[in-house]
Amino acid sequence: MNTSSTAPQKIRELDQSDPLSAKRDEFLIPADIIYLNGNSLGPLTENSQHRSQEVVQEQWGKDLIASWNTHAWIDLPFTTGEKIAKLIGAAEKQLICCDSVSINLLKVLASALQMQHSRNIILSEEDNFPTDLYAAQGMEALLGPTRCKLKTVAAPALAQALDEDVAVLLLTQVNFRNGDKHDIERLTSLAHEKGILVVWDLSHSVGVLPLRMDDWDVDFAVGCGYKYLNGGPGAPAFIYANKKHHAVMQQSIQGWMGHREPFAFEPNYENAAGVAQFLTGTPPILSLAALDSALDVFTDITIADIITKSIALSELFLGLLNEDEELQCLTLESKADPALRGAQLAFSHPAAYGICRALNRAGVVVDFRSPDIVRFGFSPLFLRFEDIWRAIQILRGIVKEKTYLQDEFSRRLKVT
Amino acid sequence: MNTSSTAPQKIRELDQSDPLSAKRDEFLIPADIIYLNGNSLGPLTENSQHRSQEVVQEQWGKDLIASWNTHAWIDLPFTTGEKIAKLIGAAEKQLICCDSVSINLLKVLASALQMQHSRNIILSEEDNFPTDLYAAQGMEALLGPTRCKLKTVAAPALAQALDEDVAVLLLTQVNFRNGDKHDIERLTSLAHEKGILVVWDLSHSVGVLPLRMDDWDVDFAVGCGYKYLNGGPGAPAFIYANKKHHAVMQQSIQGWMGHREPFAFEPNYENAAGVAQFLTGTPPILSLAALDSALDVFTDITIADIITKSIALSELFLGLLNEDEELQCLTLESKADPALRGAQLAFSHPAAYGICRALNRAGVVVDFRSPDIVRFGFSPLFLRFEDIWRAIQILRGIVKEKTYLQDEFSRRLKVT
Repeated sequence: MNTSSTAPQKIRELDQSDPLSAKRDEFLIPADIIYLNGNSLGPLTENSQHRSQEVVQEQWGKDLIASWNTHAWIDLPFTTGEKIAKLIGAAEKQLICCDSVSINLLKVLASALQMQHSRNIILSEEDNFPTDLYAAQGMEALLGPTRCKLKTVAAPALAQALDEDVAVLLLTQVNFRNGDKHDIERLTSLAHEKGILVVWDLSHSVGVLPLRMDDWDVDFAVGCGYKYLNGGPGAPAFIYANKKHHAVMQQSIQGWMGHREPFAFEPNYENAAGVAQFLTGTPPILSLAALDSALDVFTDITIADIITKSIALSELFLGLLNEDEELQCLTLESKADPALRGAQLAFSHPAAYGICRALNRAGVVVDFRSPDIVRFGFSPLFLRFEDIWRAIQILRGIVKEKTYLQDEFSRRLKVT
Repeated sequence: MNTSSTAPQKIRELDQSDPLSAKRDEFLIPADIIYLNGNSLGPLTENSQHRSQEVVQEQWGKDLIASWNTHAWIDLPFTTGEKIAKLIGAAEKQLICCDSVSINLLKVLASALQMQHSRNIILSEEDNFPTDLYAAQGMEALLGPTRCKLKTVAAPALAQALDEDVAVLLLTQVNFRNGDKHDIERLTSLAHEKGILVVWDLSHSVGVLPLRMDDWDVDFAVGCGYKYLNGGPGAPAFIYANKKHHAVMQQSIQGWMGHREPFAFEPNYENAAGVAQFLTGTPPILSLAALDSALDVFTDITIADIITKSIALSELFLGLLNEDEELQCLTLESKADPALRGAQLAFSHPAAYGICRALNRAGVVVDFRSPDIVRFGFSPLFLRFEDIWRAIQILRGIVKEKTYLQDEFSRRLKVT
């Protein structure tokens, strides 16, 4: 393997002319790792490291309960939410950060169904991320099929399935396995023509794709804090609720933090105005603060630069792979056109699991996805073009020497 | 104020003979603070400080995604749960840690209602902690009153209200305001006689009161990680589900982590066996790990010692207050018999808010509860008897000199 050799001049030039190259210094990535897994768990930033220490030692440790006010813990779901709002094209007061994607899906589905009382169908695609389907199936179990029924179709059949029985269209923009990307604007518009509300899961989109929630007139969205946003393991998720619905929506996953006056401790629930009603219990401050600080990495750069670099990284990977005869045993399962995929590439191979293990052992961290997918994520804030070149050299060595055979039958990696 | 004088000999002797006195050294409490607010937000332990740093810098920072396995993040909801199980008298495999109390209430209420399909009433008390009532009201909004209807009565009327229309009895053992304590064993037994399932909220009980979930045959319980368990701001909550229900319960607040095989990414939800089905989304690891380590403070001590000391602390406070003429303007709102209250004392005073502010300014951290309550919490792991004596001296000074008048009309403290 050429792991220690120097990348060709043309690769080094890509890094030299990269407007985001300095961003890598804000991350604390071990020197011997090429991290192509920022779409599973984004790496630690200096910001988050510093903030975590401050929140634990100074705020919790010294100022204790007063920190809810003096360090504005109480505002964090909103202040963090506003940072994410900028990344998804949402004007102020439409985002909060709290709970998990799964719980937030439940909240927006319940709200959307309540607004659509004469319809009962949640339409989704068969290969949506399982948690989205599970949330809808749970809702069906809870409410009964006369009030909520999940219907799934294959992705190409979605547009035709949008009819007047459908209450909610529930989709994830980027497929977690192969990276296939939906056209949010088009599907939202088609759904609205039939009076359908849309819920978009942006977990594999936020922080790496161009998103314009307000312009596209999206009704509700949720997304993940620990992938491209680098918020840390199990970082709180977010909810976008379009302001046009704020006057009518009635969120029913209720807890004291979503009350109009949480500290009045009134016996009867009254929704807080606007998106604040999507808060339920007390948010996990240590996790939320780490996410909040990680988002500051995005403040001095443009989304356009992020997208351009992400595409350049994956195109370089694909180009190098395609020109290498050894690597033709890997079958591209993602769209070849970068406009039609998220910031990831998926390849199938009968020994995908063993290849993933061998790559990870060699310091190239990737994901295996059942049954036979190797998934490479191209997080543009910390990856160098040289990393891509080096990853390909290592991948070639593994495929050529079949080192993956050692692991093929060992236990599956349990990674998110 | 006698804040710097030495406590009388008899007070110092109480500390000298306290079997838990060394525990204070495991906490990082600022020297100038007397923290009577461990029932709102438990203080930082050395364990949690160390663990937080390790999880952020070493695990997330260096081992990245692999930490889900190598540092057993994936098991944390269960391993942390088992530590709490020991504190509430539960045998293994009945507890998990996840989400907030509010979300967990929703899960257990949904599960209990599903098991009681011919009944629709959730019975609770008028002065239950609001989030418990809000969760039930949200469930009513979601399912409709024919399937779920919250009925509240005053605490003394509870036993008589247990009839065959009631599906679920939902109560918090210790009243958040005055500390009144329910007899879990008696009410659970009365409820079961009528075929009612019980859900106990142990938020103000766990870590400081004798609890025997299994012996008392409790069906479900939830509780808070950031009060007497010292898990940190917004620490994940827990769920206890009695193993006798594991074969029949069907938890419907669904997400991928509660699936039988989360990493198979199957399109159809199948509940994990047992209490694992109460997991929903990805847990917030930074917050969960801090709680996990905080719980290790409990490993080498007995619940009996905790209870004995907690009562001794509050009885000392009450005794000193009662023998002081200046302090008779404070009216005890808690039960005088320590067997009938939790580890807190509540006093009403027209200027309660100003008194709280003045106490906090003087380093005696307490809670104000609307409209006129000063609440003192007696967390036995880190409080010294001398702290109690000193707090009384400071309280006397404030009441005598009426320094609370400065603050009486200022903004209410927003504290949990």
